[in-house]
Amino acid sequence: MAIEGLSINFATIRQAGDFGAMVEACLRHGITSVSPWREQIAAIGLAEARRIVRANGLRLTGLCRGGFFPALRASDRAAAIDENRRAIDEAAELGADCLVLVVGGLPAGSRDIAAARQMVEEGLSEILPHARAAGVPLGIEPLHPAYAADRACVNLIGQSLDLCDRLDPDHAGGIGLAIDVYHVWWDPSLAAGIARAGREGRILAHHICDWLVPTRDPLNDRGMMGDGVIDLKAFRHMIEAAGFHGPQEVEIFSHDWGARPADAVLATIVDRFRTVC
Amino acid sequence: MAIEGLSINFATIRQAGDFGAMVEACLRHGITSVSPWREQIAAIGLAEARRIVRANGLRLTGLCRGGFFPALRASDRAAAIDENRRAIDEAAELGADCLVLVVGGLPAGSRDIAAARQMVEEGLSEILPHARAAGVPLGIEPLHPAYAADRACVNLIGQSLDLCDRLDPDHAGGIGLAIDVYHVWWDPSLAAGIARAGREGRILAHHICDWLVPTRDPLNDRGMMGDGVIDLKAFRHMIEAAGFHGPQEVEIFSHDWGARPADAVLATIVDRFRTVC
Repeated sequence: MAIEGLSINFATIRQAGDFGAMVEACLRHGITSVSPWREQIAAIGLAEARRIVRANGLRLTGLCRGGFFPALRASDRAAAIDENRRAIDEAAELGADCLVLVVGGLPAGSRDIAAARQMVEEGLSEILPHARAAGVPLGIEPLHPAYAADRACVNLIGQSLDLCDRLDPDHAGGIGLAIDVYHVWWDPSLAAGIARAGREGRILAHHICDWLVPTRDPLNDRGMMGDGVIDLKAFRHMIEAAGFHGPQEVEIFSHDWGARPADAVLATIVDRFRTVC
Repeated sequence: MAIEGLSINFATIRQAGDFGAMVEACLRHGITSVSPWREQIAAIGLAEARRIVRANGLRLTGLCRGGFFPALRASDRAAAIDENRRAIDEAAELGADCLVLVVGGLPAGSRDIAAARQMVEEGLSEILPHARAAGVPLGIEPLHPAYAADRACVNLIGQSLDLCDRLDPDHAGGIGLAIDVYHVWWDPSLAAGIARAGREGRILAHHICDWLVPTRDPLNDRGMMGDGVIDLKAFRHMIEAAGFHGPQEVEIFSHDWGARPADAVLATIVDRFRTVC
């Protein structure tokens, strides 16, 4: 039986094997929405990935990932823009709901986060026309401030929406947000930010997991839904009240869960999705 | 020779020994501003601590720490308020510039961060009259969002200032912020927040260290100034432009630095203070 409203990010079940094996694992649990990573697609080839997607009627709630715009050298920034254009093309081939963007942090050797943010804005501005032409919305993912230095200098929903407004002042679309509970659950402006994102038609994806106490590792200690402190039902209600009714995409970077068999992880996800999300 | 404008938080040199030993270590390096922890004071007794402070003409840039207001049971919240009143009395005895407050995160078993924030506000409201009577300003320390769950649900300068405004609408004083670069360096509203804090007379303390890339441990991997990505000179300029000219207090929670001799740590701090801060 198909499970509506649940998507699996393939970072969560890498241990299942290649793209095809991860899809098979999801199908065994009734899950037909997924979100793969570019290197997983590259490993089997774009054409074969697309064949699998179409043959199984999969919905791709996102392709992970573009971004990483800041660099000190102009040639490196140009290379990043080219790489993002290729990512857009792949997302279009696969029919993904959006290209998820981790925008990048400080360039190596820099302490100028304002300059990094400007580089992000310029990079987005460069790729937005291509994304629109390809029909692939750009999903800026505001990342937790713990990742501001090395992964994404865009960290708040409000900051992301301001960025969208500058890049798309007429609200023509093609750019919005991938909102992951892990990154933004603590924001005192969360409710207002989600409501604004909905009003402005900017919610492209909704990622879930949980925040563990204690968090032992800055990168790979995300929790299974229900094991942490995020009020997931309240979050979902906010997102839905804001007009987003797409699948909730489970993205859990975790040494613990990564060490368990993919089928056990998926069984737990389905159970938690039904009870705590 | 005395070093102006530099204070040492005693979490940074715990390895030196007890309160008296830490003071002696600072004096050896020309440092006469310090910020001790309550348990360090308790270990030698408040009267003896006060004697040492006065005999050496020390400035206390803060006493660490009060806060931790949220709790599910009313009796536990009342106990926290009593404990904070005792902390205020100790800060008054020692003549500290402020009582630093780590306000507390989610109560165990709770996922309701809005309720926790309300408990913080109620706790602050309860102790503010006592703080004013004792002449000890309350220094709310907005903590990095990575600590929202377990240490402080007040995480942004703007959020902290809004809280101050609600508690002290007439700007009578007695409540403000301890601004630590580690917690807020990434905030896209940082410049505006510091300027507002200065305008409103709310800057009580300024803590420094650095943000390492990568950060290997969420709690105890803070960096020595200059080893990370925070633009410390720019930060100091913002703080000073906002009207705060008190000492910069070095607070480094670090397994690495904690394993080195206190004199070596202090020598490095003095060097970095002169070159990168």
